[in-house]
Amino acid sequence: MPEIDPLDKFLKETKERIDTHILNFLPQEHERHEVRRLYEMMRDYPLRSGKRLRPAICLLICEAFGGNLREALNTAAALELLQDWLLIHDDIEDQSDLRRGQPCLHLKYGIPMAINVGDALHCKMWEMLHSNADSLGYEIAFQILSEFSQLCNQVVEGQHIELSWVSNNRWNLTEADYWTMCVQKTAWYTCITPCRIGALIAGATTADADQFNDIGMNLGVAFQIQDDVLNLVGEVGRYGKEIAGDISEGKRTLVLIHLLSSCTKTEALRVIEIMDKSREDKTQEEIEDVLRLMGKYKSIQYAQQQSKRLAQNAFTQFTREFARLPDSRAKNLFSRLIHFVIEREY
Amino acid sequence: MPEIDPLDKFLKETKERIDTHILNFLPQEHERHEVRRLYEMMRDYPLRSGKRLRPAICLLICEAFGGNLREALNTAAALELLQDWLLIHDDIEDQSDLRRGQPCLHLKYGIPMAINVGDALHCKMWEMLHSNADSLGYEIAFQILSEFSQLCNQVVEGQHIELSWVSNNRWNLTEADYWTMCVQKTAWYTCITPCRIGALIAGATTADADQFNDIGMNLGVAFQIQDDVLNLVGEVGRYGKEIAGDISEGKRTLVLIHLLSSCTKTEALRVIEIMDKSREDKTQEEIEDVLRLMGKYKSIQYAQQQSKRLAQNAFTQFTREFARLPDSRAKNLFSRLIHFVIEREY
Repeated sequence: MPEIDPLDKFLKETKERIDTHILNFLPQEHERHEVRRLYEMMRDYPLRSGKRLRPAICLLICEAFGGNLREALNTAAALELLQDWLLIHDDIEDQSDLRRGQPCLHLKYGIPMAINVGDALHCKMWEMLHSNADSLGYEIAFQILSEFSQLCNQVVEGQHIELSWVSNNRWNLTEADYWTMCVQKTAWYTCITPCRIGALIAGATTADADQFNDIGMNLGVAFQIQDDVLNLVGEVGRYGKEIAGDISEGKRTLVLIHLLSSCTKTEALRVIEIMDKSREDKTQEEIEDVLRLMGKYKSIQYAQQQSKRLAQNAFTQFTREFARLPDSRAKNLFSRLIHFVIEREY
Repeated sequence: MPEIDPLDKFLKETKERIDTHILNFLPQEHERHEVRRLYEMMRDYPLRSGKRLRPAICLLICEAFGGNLREALNTAAALELLQDWLLIHDDIEDQSDLRRGQPCLHLKYGIPMAINVGDALHCKMWEMLHSNADSLGYEIAFQILSEFSQLCNQVVEGQHIELSWVSNNRWNLTEADYWTMCVQKTAWYTCITPCRIGALIAGATTADADQFNDIGMNLGVAFQIQDDVLNLVGEVGRYGKEIAGDISEGKRTLVLIHLLSSCTKTEALRVIEIMDKSREDKTQEEIEDVLRLMGKYKSIQYAQQQSKRLAQNAFTQFTREFARLPDSRAKNLFSRLIHFVIEREY
């Protein structure tokens, strides 16, 4: 029998715990059938496959800091609810097709209901966080609320920056622009806050939590770049989104920014012409043209290198700054997880 | 010089206070121009005209219960932020054109950005409520958070019920259906919670707060019915929305439910045929046909009578159940406000 990778095992267990916690928290029964239908829609994204990476990070850091994993479970689950409402709204905003292997919520139920389902889960996220007051006491509960507020401010700003680029047809972007957007849109909620909160629940100081800002930034951007790479080269079955969907959507990725800065002017104009077309107006041939140029200029490899470099930075920083933490299952798993972020194929 | 109505004066003062509080709370400066632009969009709805009715109710009940109006200001302002993000999302969901006399946010900036601006204000609402911990202490702050969670659950359910009717082309609705939807979608956030929270901040018991459930239900539905009536007979300049916009949107109002239950079968089929058409496909003549039938069957008068009856119930309940509260400016103003809700022309 092949040995089970301990990180795989932990991620699987975490998924089960988090999913159970969320499904127990979400409402089920209602006398009106319309409301029962809303409840079903609220369970749709939470029931889909997914890595539950953010809760896993939060739980591991809590345990690595000597905290009790059970105390962080509710907050970790709220990170997953955050992901659910963000994805529902993002999928509408980006006109995405597939999410976690199934049609996006707005394609199943229409944009109006999908917006409202996102709002419903957003409200439930805060309600879940408020319940921390009973289990963790007022002070930590408020500290966590304040962390979530900070995080939400970052996410909506990052999302707005990206939407601005789309709406203004902006393509003259630098890697620094990408970095700013990606830190705000992805790194905060994927890594920085999950680490910070895990540490705080375990009783760490704010100074400890602050040390995760750089680590989480590097790891979060590494995660996003790997996501963009998988979007171009992944298998649809594992990845769960449409392959090269980012080209269809006209998304500004590091791969694309590298391509535009490396190719000839004629090629750049051609790429922009294709990228600026609406999803429906892009032919398969045009999408393949862009992919071919990305190959020609080794833009995907470049992005993979950057992703590796950033994850390596995160690993070095974590190892150095938290050398004083005793060796533990959680500390080892978190180190493994840093590598998983860039090695994953889904 | 004409005498200034004390309620008008109070509403005007409240508007100034609330608007100042919100604008001071929302972020202003940012180094990136895209983010400054997001901040501008976040101020858009809060800067538009409007009655600030929900904050006013909260402040008056707080004062009527012997509380300090200043202690309720932050929470009252959060009720207005709630209204702002709800309206931004509702306007997309209902495909509305005008809001408070100006084009809806999604018509100015597109649906993707408008969804995100709504989310940004939603997050700011909770952040504002969290700051109650500093000024009111943990316990009341959490009590208010829990009231808001309850309210949000009601609003998204009410909204979903209404969206279901639209999406299923459902017209065989009873007054009881309308009542359920309207209590959940409107009465909770317009009247029930503002009253409850005002009382709780003043130190009232939960039992006191519970007495507002019936009062707020009656007053909230009265408010919505009057809103539906104004939509049909109001002046666009004062009302701030497109006149008969509810007919264009195919909205299920008490007026319409009365019409369908009063008219002949042939007329009903004609009304439903018109109402079911998309906004763009409805001609001005068809909208006037529906309005004419509403006149023929006195459906608008019927709704006005119902609105009056409900407001009168709210007044009687308030007077009876809170007879023990000492006479005060706030108590008198709240009684006046009950009548204002159905007498208003905007």
